[in-house]
Amino acid sequence: MFKIPKHQVAGHQAIDGNLGPLVDDSGRFYKPLQDDERGTTELAFYRSFSSKLPHHIRGFFPVFYGTQLVEASDGSGLRPHLVLQDITSNHLNPSILDVKIGSRSWYPEASEDYIQKALEGDRLTTTVTLGFRISGLQIYESKESGYWKPARKEVKSFSADDVRLVLRKFVSSNLEPEPDCCFASTIYGGCSGILEQLLELKAWFEDQTVYHFHSCSLLLLIDKESVLNGRTVPFVEVKLIDFAHTVEAEGVIDHNFLGGLCSFIKFVSEVLTDSKVSTIEASFN
Amino acid sequence: MFKIPKHQVAGHQAIDGNLGPLVDDSGRFYKPLQDDERGTTELAFYRSFSSKLPHHIRGFFPVFYGTQLVEASDGSGLRPHLVLQDITSNHLNPSILDVKIGSRSWYPEASEDYIQKALEGDRLTTTVTLGFRISGLQIYESKESGYWKPARKEVKSFSADDVRLVLRKFVSSNLEPEPDCCFASTIYGGCSGILEQLLELKAWFEDQTVYHFHSCSLLLLIDKESVLNGRTVPFVEVKLIDFAHTVEAEGVIDHNFLGGLCSFIKFVSEVLTDSKVSTIEASFN
Repeated sequence: MFKIPKHQVAGHQAIDGNLGPLVDDSGRFYKPLQDDERGTTELAFYRSFSSKLPHHIRGFFPVFYGTQLVEASDGSGLRPHLVLQDITSNHLNPSILDVKIGSRSWYPEASEDYIQKALEGDRLTTTVTLGFRISGLQIYESKESGYWKPARKEVKSFSADDVRLVLRKFVSSNLEPEPDCCFASTIYGGCSGILEQLLELKAWFEDQTVYHFHSCSLLLLIDKESVLNGRTVPFVEVKLIDFAHTVEAEGVIDHNFLGGLCSFIKFVSEVLTDSKVSTIEASFN
Repeated sequence: MFKIPKHQVAGHQAIDGNLGPLVDDSGRFYKPLQDDERGTTELAFYRSFSSKLPHHIRGFFPVFYGTQLVEASDGSGLRPHLVLQDITSNHLNPSILDVKIGSRSWYPEASEDYIQKALEGDRLTTTVTLGFRISGLQIYESKESGYWKPARKEVKSFSADDVRLVLRKFVSSNLEPEPDCCFASTIYGGCSGILEQLLELKAWFEDQTVYHFHSCSLLLLIDKESVLNGRTVPFVEVKLIDFAHTVEAEGVIDHNFLGGLCSFIKFVSEVLTDSKVSTIEASFN
């Protein structure tokens, strides 16, 4: 039984008869293969990545189960879909941040048309200035108020300060008037927190000359309730998705992704540092 | 007594009645201040950098002695010049590599005209693909053969493989048929070699939110004879120059420079690793 994913925050969505991904009850995510080169590229990536990546890096990617013919969500009939792990399947109220990494989403091998469109988008968002842009998000606040899930247009117009605020809200128990950042030390900090995971990814990107990940998204996925409940393994994950523009690296590191990742790491670490300062100040009052 | 610098490898040159930098016998380098915003920006940088940078980073920049009215090299009369340290003044036969760091040399604050021209140059060179481009070089081979100093046009058309070859020639006693890389371990390697200096710079760039260095050059300067003679302090230096497009960072790291620097570090470290492998292989033959 296929359903529309509850927790998708960016990308094409299978609503109003459009073509988009589906999920089932067994924890699998079905992503329609695009007809053009993007589909070929993404499939080639998923078929090869597990043999090309070191073991400790594979966990940053969704598990790939192959392809399957599935009734497309737009009613156009059977279509090949990538069968992937549904990363959010076990979580009731996940908060999710989708961050497109890199100070450019275009690349020399792409068509001139793609390059010009991507460049325009990069200049209109924080991609050029920050080296990344938030492309979607949902932040769970509480049973009463539910999710904060700003519209795509609002997300696209985020400034550097908006990004800072989102990163604070993401680890807070409240959104207004001033996010309390009370989960910062457990979600961003700690030995298996987001910052440590990002630093592990960074170390790999400083060395890897296998892939260049253009227009790829870094997902931060957390479940604040799992942290509150003191679960031994709280749900705090970093995943990479969207490989329709991932090409071979030809002996050069992915300096575009790496630079953007370092910039994002700096933003996250600033929230963590500020929250520690606030805690110390509070303890003196 | 002002003279045309002997060892300039890129940028405007004071030859054939053109406007360019001059040097004197006391080890100072006179760079004509450009009339437009570029001049204002570069002067503002030199006036402020020493108070804004941590002590251990200042050595990567030429010493700044102020400005001085000097007869311009193009015969146009007195013109304000930046008075800087002449980095090569004490060296008879320095080898120099001028590397423009970053996968873009344009920036949002620049004029649309500048952006389009810079973008075109970035796409035609290795700037976009490698995250840096060599903009000039001279490599000293021997008394008999002197310098290898390829023309600007040749340098501009360098491919990734050309860059790899240049980095090998830079630390070799011969240029043909196969550079021997015999200086790699002392010039690129070692605790005060180029790689260590680049890593120190990288660590700073991961954190600094003071400046964004667009279209800035990283100079590698070495004197192979000082290494051969076993001088206690061989001449192996890394400097940053050209700040006509350096702007304030506004709380964001210079992800464009950092990404390109990491890519360049990878290229240098590969020459070092390969040269070690060759040495081990040779010792078994």
